[in-house]
Amino acid sequence: MNQTKPTLYTSLSPALLHLYDLSNSIVVIIDVLRATSTIATALYNGAKSVIPVDSVSRCIEIGKQIQGITAGERDGKIAEGLIYGNSPFEYPKEFVEGKTLVLTTTNGTRLLQMALDKGATEIITGSFPNLTAVCDHLTEMKQNVILGCAAWKDRVNMEDMLFAGAVISTIRSQFSINCDSSRLAETIYKKAQKDLFGFMKKNDASHYHRLMGFGLEKDIRYCLAADGANVLPVYDNGKLVVKQ
Amino acid sequence: MNQTKPTLYTSLSPALLHLYDLSNSIVVIIDVLRATSTIATALYNGAKSVIPVDSVSRCIEIGKQIQGITAGERDGKIAEGLIYGNSPFEYPKEFVEGKTLVLTTTNGTRLLQMALDKGATEIITGSFPNLTAVCDHLTEMKQNVILGCAAWKDRVNMEDMLFAGAVISTIRSQFSINCDSSRLAETIYKKAQKDLFGFMKKNDASHYHRLMGFGLEKDIRYCLAADGANVLPVYDNGKLVVKQ
Repeated sequence: MNQTKPTLYTSLSPALLHLYDLSNSIVVIIDVLRATSTIATALYNGAKSVIPVDSVSRCIEIGKQIQGITAGERDGKIAEGLIYGNSPFEYPKEFVEGKTLVLTTTNGTRLLQMALDKGATEIITGSFPNLTAVCDHLTEMKQNVILGCAAWKDRVNMEDMLFAGAVISTIRSQFSINCDSSRLAETIYKKAQKDLFGFMKKNDASHYHRLMGFGLEKDIRYCLAADGANVLPVYDNGKLVVKQ
Repeated sequence: MNQTKPTLYTSLSPALLHLYDLSNSIVVIIDVLRATSTIATALYNGAKSVIPVDSVSRCIEIGKQIQGITAGERDGKIAEGLIYGNSPFEYPKEFVEGKTLVLTTTNGTRLLQMALDKGATEIITGSFPNLTAVCDHLTEMKQNVILGCAAWKDRVNMEDMLFAGAVISTIRSQFSINCDSSRLAETIYKKAQKDLFGFMKKNDASHYHRLMGFGLEKDIRYCLAADGANVLPVYDNGKLVVKQ
């Protein structure tokens, strides 16, 4: 084993993040359905920045201050007081270019705040639509990595673990990986990779089930497809912006 | 979906156990390498009971009080002040029959205490050596089930998830399972089941690596084989005894 390789760990839930040393690490926030997919998409389509917030009231407050697009859902519908939802399809170039999106995302924002508090060197967001941008960046940086799954109210979910597995299967040779969660994620991804949508359907993943119930098959399919919005969102002083 | 079926959830780490409602549930404590495998083995070989304790000092104290066999390891060696180790092979019938084993197990005992505090209806221990006894009991009881992985210092591990998957793949039709952790565990198990030892080796599971380093291949192989000690340990007032 080459001891000079940086380490890579996967935290399957925010409730497990405290187990890992985040200092001197790049943390990848993963919230595949749909927050980090929508963040990548909005930035890919030219949004100036995306401000992640953890509540509807904070979204409204910041939206007013900066004249931003306020977005967020509760139970599959646009949350009261906000103007747009969580779907990546709501943010095409002709709408979002040059604007700031204020996005309510409970699980992802909380995880991002935890990573900030614990002194992560850099925080980026990952999703299948920007898979290659994430992998290229991690390979290039040669720093320790924590893949942080946002999960669902701390419960481990399938799609975030699949994305962690996709990253690991791409970059594993560059890292020292002594982490069963990472190995499990890679195994699951390899089993599923030929048809991620089919895998989620066959196993009746909880978010597959939930979003299909809202009629959002198109969203799920988009959020499980690689490189549809291949930019690298990086957190910088309260905002996610495209890494230049 | 048959709403009258009991529910089944898998908690992949003690740090996730609080997410599940343990009241009116049977909790299965899973610590495959090696605590729950050794517990099943000692009871199968006629031990009167196994008292799980969370520290060496407590082990010594109780061992004196009841004239029990004190057992526990630190870094692969018998812990100072104790007489035996954690290997199932240390507890054959001719040695352990009629005796009480006081076993130091950090991860498993802590999880067991959490399950007690949270009001589990019944606490049993599970491992591959008593896989069928666990599955038969859960099928018979028709109650809600939490599969509780002891993990390693709260980090998810491969072998406990594999055992959860083995249980689920056997009894899934009897339960309502709305839990991605359970579905992931079953998927991993199905991928690994033809050769669990080979799967752990190929994926360099952290405990595989650790125990092989102590020369314990025989222990690993035994702890991954089904039904070598097919009894049902149930927790009763501080002790694990065979369920009659």
